[in-house]
Amino acid sequence: MFEVVNVAEKLGRFEDRWNPKIVGELNGQYVKLAKLLGEFHWHSHAVEDELFWVVRGRLEIEFRDGSVELGPGEFVIVPRGVEHRPVAREEVEIMLFEPAGTVNVGDGSDREPAILEWI
Amino acid sequence: MFEVVNVAEKLGRFEDRWNPKIVGELNGQYVKLAKLLGEFHWHSHAVEDELFWVVRGRLEIEFRDGSVELGPGEFVIVPRGVEHRPVAREEVEIMLFEPAGTVNVGDGSDREPAILEWI
Repeated sequence: MFEVVNVAEKLGRFEDRWNPKIVGELNGQYVKLAKLLGEFHWHSHAVEDELFWVVRGRLEIEFRDGSVELGPGEFVIVPRGVEHRPVAREEVEIMLFEPAGTVNVGDGSDREPAILEWI
Repeated sequence: MFEVVNVAEKLGRFEDRWNPKIVGELNGQYVKLAKLLGEFHWHSHAVEDELFWVVRGRLEIEFRDGSVELGPGEFVIVPRGVEHRPVAREEVEIMLFEPAGTVNVGDGSDREPAILEWI
């Protein structure tokens, strides 16, 4: 039978931050879970829109012309091409929806991308 | 600035059941919210995988060879082509993630599909 994914249980399986894990795939998109703390770098994805959904904690996402803040049960969609920077002043647990090909560090970054693994 | 979608607030905007509302679009996929009560009909989607995420309540999804039951914070992905039937013994609030072209009643159904609207 098809797997029932319990998000809290999956989040309990890892501790590392800024390293999204895959928990589902559909229509060429991945569902990922991640833990964040601190500030990421500015980046964008040329051809992928990205959904950030907060499960626990609070997440700020900065844009060049403003910012949004998300709490549990809230999401925002960052359109392709838009520079953004996630900032978590305390640890936040999030779900991401995005195309399977999305690289977490953004396009053209000299940073090492996260190695995606299923949990 | 980009809209922060509060799922509970959006769910408070409608009462009708079996009539998903759109709350987000990305990469050709819609994020939808719906309220369900009772039994839907058996159906499938030939080319679309469909994610069911429970926000509140409990949802059973029957397949021809078994079933799954979901509570809050749990999701299942129903692969394309798989016949399924959602059953909600009490009202359940769900989020759906599926391609924009997905018709809620399934392929080849003589039932009237839901008229999709943004909320």
